[in-house]
Amino acid sequence: MKSAVYQGDQTIALGTSLPVAPGPGEVRLEVAYCGVCGTDMHIYHGHMDQRVDRPLVIGHEVSAVVVEVGEGVDSVAIGEPVAVRPLHFGAATEFDRGHAHVGKNLKFIGIDSPGGMQGSWTVPAYTLHKLPAGMSLQHGAMIEPTAVAVHDVRLGRVAAGEICVVIGGGPIGLLIALVARHKGARVILTEINPSRLALARSLGIEVVNPVENDVVGTVETLTGGAMADCVFEVSGSAPGVELMTKLPAARGRIVMVAIHPQPRPVDLFKFFWSEVTLIGARLYEAHDFDEAIALVAAGDVPVEPLITAVAPIEDVQATFEKIDRTPDGVKFLIQCGEPAIA
Amino acid sequence: MKSAVYQGDQTIALGTSLPVAPGPGEVRLEVAYCGVCGTDMHIYHGHMDQRVDRPLVIGHEVSAVVVEVGEGVDSVAIGEPVAVRPLHFGAATEFDRGHAHVGKNLKFIGIDSPGGMQGSWTVPAYTLHKLPAGMSLQHGAMIEPTAVAVHDVRLGRVAAGEICVVIGGGPIGLLIALVARHKGARVILTEINPSRLALARSLGIEVVNPVENDVVGTVETLTGGAMADCVFEVSGSAPGVELMTKLPAARGRIVMVAIHPQPRPVDLFKFFWSEVTLIGARLYEAHDFDEAIALVAAGDVPVEPLITAVAPIEDVQATFEKIDRTPDGVKFLIQCGEPAIA
Repeated sequence: MKSAVYQGDQTIALGTSLPVAPGPGEVRLEVAYCGVCGTDMHIYHGHMDQRVDRPLVIGHEVSAVVVEVGEGVDSVAIGEPVAVRPLHFGAATEFDRGHAHVGKNLKFIGIDSPGGMQGSWTVPAYTLHKLPAGMSLQHGAMIEPTAVAVHDVRLGRVAAGEICVVIGGGPIGLLIALVARHKGARVILTEINPSRLALARSLGIEVVNPVENDVVGTVETLTGGAMADCVFEVSGSAPGVELMTKLPAARGRIVMVAIHPQPRPVDLFKFFWSEVTLIGARLYEAHDFDEAIALVAAGDVPVEPLITAVAPIEDVQATFEKIDRTPDGVKFLIQCGEPAIA
Repeated sequence: MKSAVYQGDQTIALGTSLPVAPGPGEVRLEVAYCGVCGTDMHIYHGHMDQRVDRPLVIGHEVSAVVVEVGEGVDSVAIGEPVAVRPLHFGAATEFDRGHAHVGKNLKFIGIDSPGGMQGSWTVPAYTLHKLPAGMSLQHGAMIEPTAVAVHDVRLGRVAAGEICVVIGGGPIGLLIALVARHKGARVILTEINPSRLALARSLGIEVVNPVENDVVGTVETLTGGAMADCVFEVSGSAPGVELMTKLPAARGRIVMVAIHPQPRPVDLFKFFWSEVTLIGARLYEAHDFDEAIALVAAGDVPVEPLITAVAPIEDVQATFEKIDRTPDGVKFLIQCGEPAIA
């Protein structure tokens, strides 16, 4: 079995994935699919070299099948399909206030320790969420990003009948739009990439291209001046940050989903004037995974159209290069094996 | 009776306050005291000349006695002492989402229309909150800024046992500290002005002077690394904005109380990483006034130490000049009359 190993310098080498016997509380998986995340691209480009050890098996958007269980594990059984919530909670600190998923000692599996882009992967049993019968393992690999979107929409307190604007139509932006729409919100998505715009439109989402239209004016017109109850900043761009404060209604919310490594100029006056709230959102909690699985299983969040291509692990370097060249794609899956569901 | 009239160019002239008979739903007051707000200082300096008509009677932190009631007014009676909530709600819009105090058509009485720094003042009856027997009219003039603090602490969802940091120890910062402490929070206040620091200390509030000590390190030490549940940015300064994101614990809140007219660089990464929330807070709602009156009446928020000086309206120009020269003061009251409580 193979593994995708980040070596530094835009190089993902093929390695050998040796089965590691599960210790107490652990489970050995055979991985079916592993999605390529924006974070993996950041790692590939060396932007996270200060954080990641090299060589590192990357990947954290995994569907897999249980092939071995360690001592004391009774939550899953051999042959069961699972998604992995790749969080290793360290010791709790007072700073955490009980929020382990953003705790000081949190380690992210696939960044801070070896990830799932490999044939055999041994992980703690508590990271696993069973996939329901009938869900394809390709869709299973979409659970992790869907859980991010579920978390973001939940923290944004989106309610039926509300108006949402999503800034940025990459995989997470599109999933947020789909989850928010399922909650009963009207969703407008802004994106500059024509093919992503076309995809969003084909999913029935209203779109605005800031290159062609003034977003604020368009949202004003579309909503009859009501503006947005909740805005999601998913672009990670300076224009996105400039735009985000211009869209909320009185007491509107902005969910900060994107990673902005550098401080950005923010219109703090708008927060004061209209009592707007900015809500930081990161990762997910266990129930976000459960909800994501239910939404995908029911077809309430259609993930199939978001899968741009599936490549065998042997093509991992070529796939990363292709993602880099073609911003038109959405989600690329790497097939790491062909485990059989029992 | 006299009035304090902003003429432009750092000039507050003495005018004549002519009694205006109250129309239906209106009440004529004789004003006892009117506090000088930071906003009045902004007006004085011409920073709000684009918004304010000149000449304008300024002032909005008022205690008064009802001397005449218009048709249909039964909520107050002649001789009753009142505080004024100086908000004129315009027509509701969809943008407002029912939050009239930050609605699109809100007019602020004393900025957008003549204020209360005058002997006789006619206002809508719905702006009035009765003061309880035994509350001095000087303390009554402290209700408006106390209501601001009550609103800020409420929007910050401060709970007993929590740790709060207040950035900026002017009148509002001190009142926020006092209200939050009354809620059962531990409060640390940062301020650079030695006399304001001394006042805060004399009120039993823990203080840090950023000129002398590293605030983040001090809060870390004082809290054993737990850091803040809620941070109030009341300084309006760039260093305050830089500091505010360094203090919250996981899922901590920052309440944006200050007015930042220009965009400021903000560490958005911290919002993402620790799921921090920024909550914009402006003015107050009716129940904030009710709570402020109860807190001041009970002595739970001691306002007496915050009153730096009381000046007759004849000295209004000299008082504004003095406030400008001496940043050591906290709250200056202008005596506009001597109405008798029935």
